[in-house]
Amino acid sequence: MNQRLENLMDWMKEKEIDFSFITLPDNVFYLSGFRSDPNERLLAIGVFAEKEPFLICPQMEIEDAKRAGWGYELIGYTDIENPWEMIERSTNSRVSSIRKIAIEKEHLNVERFEQLQYCFSDAAFIGAEEKLHQLRMIKDEHELNLLRKAAEYADLAVQAGVNEITEGKSELEILAAIEFEMKKQGIAEMSFSTMVLTGKNAASPHGTPGVTKVKKGDLVLFDLGVVYEGYCSDITRTVAYGDLNDKQLEIYETVLKAEKAAVHAVKPGVKAKELDLTARKIIAEAGYGDYFPHRLGHGLGISVHEYPSLTETNELKIEQGMVFTIEPGIYVPEIAGVRIEDDVYVTETGVEVLTKFPKELQIVK
Amino acid sequence: MNQRLENLMDWMKEKEIDFSFITLPDNVFYLSGFRSDPNERLLAIGVFAEKEPFLICPQMEIEDAKRAGWGYELIGYTDIENPWEMIERSTNSRVSSIRKIAIEKEHLNVERFEQLQYCFSDAAFIGAEEKLHQLRMIKDEHELNLLRKAAEYADLAVQAGVNEITEGKSELEILAAIEFEMKKQGIAEMSFSTMVLTGKNAASPHGTPGVTKVKKGDLVLFDLGVVYEGYCSDITRTVAYGDLNDKQLEIYETVLKAEKAAVHAVKPGVKAKELDLTARKIIAEAGYGDYFPHRLGHGLGISVHEYPSLTETNELKIEQGMVFTIEPGIYVPEIAGVRIEDDVYVTETGVEVLTKFPKELQIVK
Repeated sequence: MNQRLENLMDWMKEKEIDFSFITLPDNVFYLSGFRSDPNERLLAIGVFAEKEPFLICPQMEIEDAKRAGWGYELIGYTDIENPWEMIERSTNSRVSSIRKIAIEKEHLNVERFEQLQYCFSDAAFIGAEEKLHQLRMIKDEHELNLLRKAAEYADLAVQAGVNEITEGKSELEILAAIEFEMKKQGIAEMSFSTMVLTGKNAASPHGTPGVTKVKKGDLVLFDLGVVYEGYCSDITRTVAYGDLNDKQLEIYETVLKAEKAAVHAVKPGVKAKELDLTARKIIAEAGYGDYFPHRLGHGLGISVHEYPSLTETNELKIEQGMVFTIEPGIYVPEIAGVRIEDDVYVTETGVEVLTKFPKELQIVK
Repeated sequence: MNQRLENLMDWMKEKEIDFSFITLPDNVFYLSGFRSDPNERLLAIGVFAEKEPFLICPQMEIEDAKRAGWGYELIGYTDIENPWEMIERSTNSRVSSIRKIAIEKEHLNVERFEQLQYCFSDAAFIGAEEKLHQLRMIKDEHELNLLRKAAEYADLAVQAGVNEITEGKSELEILAAIEFEMKKQGIAEMSFSTMVLTGKNAASPHGTPGVTKVKKGDLVLFDLGVVYEGYCSDITRTVAYGDLNDKQLEIYETVLKAEKAAVHAVKPGVKAKELDLTARKIIAEAGYGDYFPHRLGHGLGISVHEYPSLTETNELKIEQGMVFTIEPGIYVPEIAGVRIEDDVYVTETGVEVLTKFPKELQIVK
């Protein structure tokens, strides 16, 4: 049994859960190595406290699942077969009664929930998410290597964007050039919609890239990431096109100082909120407290947003093996928007910064 | 009240539904004109049989919702407020009891379902999807114009791809050039992951674009679409790079004949399955019946896959105002993969083909 499945099974034994029904594609990938999202068609892993698991997927994906290394029961169904009958049969062949089922309550839809209730009418349902979040939060060596590689490509992507900055280029043109460069390097998927924002657009934390053109004296903000073998990166850099005014420089230096201080504070044992407050305090003391309207960062892995969440109230203790973003920002409407974001890994004694693009202000002439 | 909301309310009266709770972003957009997907945060429209509806969204999106033209109650919540209490209050202010609630069972997750059950403990829940699918299936003039425009951009995108075909270019490079061209034209979003497949890759209906390079004698398959003001296009064209062999030509001409025959058969009153079978029969008679493993087409609109579904068993009668794809294909492993796909609109007497890129075999020299 792989270690991830064993960890889930240990939790199930402890909580007296007979059956876990896992359908979120990211969790299926985490537990099986099989990365797929057949949309409205069912993809699920059934896990039992004491028996071998099964994976059910559309018939046409069976070979892909095998190739991904799934070594337990594999159930394929065609569009004219009923997968729920197959699930019931497979479950009955392992256990005589099911009284407690763990499901992903934030993901499973009502239709599927009603199917499960129908198949297992005596069962109570509890949430599986908390445990899965907790397991996924601590990365192993293999995952760390993929995240390092994803971060490396994110660095290259920012460089590709910086190379494109010239008078008259629009946000969307620069964005397209970045994704073009990534595709040429074999990256098929970005981890979220690439952001290239300039001037007033960058001064809103919710801007979307459009036809605004870069011009001298503007800041250009890049927020992007790639998916590398199923793992995500997420970087933000803000660069100057030409010379900035004093206000823009002050904002940049404040964000940089806050970001560096928060990164420096990362180590096992510190609380999530302490990291957020380290950055937030520096920004507030510089007089920009009202212009940092979001949390410091978020976990990163198979999902581009996962646990832990670095908010000013989260008491969670940081542990070795966690990977998350550190991304303070200041957005003063009509003046400037600056955010600097790194991906960091928590080591035994401190921190490894995965994203390496320079953070000192880069000025494109 | 807008006509779409009124249609839903008429159905609710008929079915004695007190309250519809709509959360699928595409349905929210359809009913309100407000296009947003705040992911794990709640976005919903509450519709009542006899009272005005409300829309609830994160506080930071309130202005966007207003700008989108929502003229009824608008409820914003911050990350520290409980939206369910607000929903309960707003509902209680309109009706004294709620006994029947329509929800999207294929979309609503268990966590939100349990919240609704808690707020409205006497209520029964029924599915809202069937009605919403039915309403969205018939496009009005405004929607048709957006779909025409989306199809026009899809034609341009295919042309951009064809222009890129030269010895040694990889699928991903051509794909990147297409998306680059679209972004330059102001298209921020494709309607699904763009497909550029060549050689053996194109001969699998489930290929994914990679580093395979085009070479003389290969077919190159483009399957792509854009989102234009919230509406999707979806086109497939297969072109030749250099001269093809007889087998490839025979497959191409068979698909083309099947596609044209199916398009020609489109008119109000015909059944969905008759369209599928029109194409399927031609392909089977040419000896390729086993190599057309998917349905003929699917509805198109706010979602890139919506109703109707053109399968060989669907008895649904085609009506004026429907928009769907016609996309027969033949995939012979190791030999050739050809698919030709148009977006069509059902007129009073026949069909308007929205995608206009030539279907006769295009040969890139």
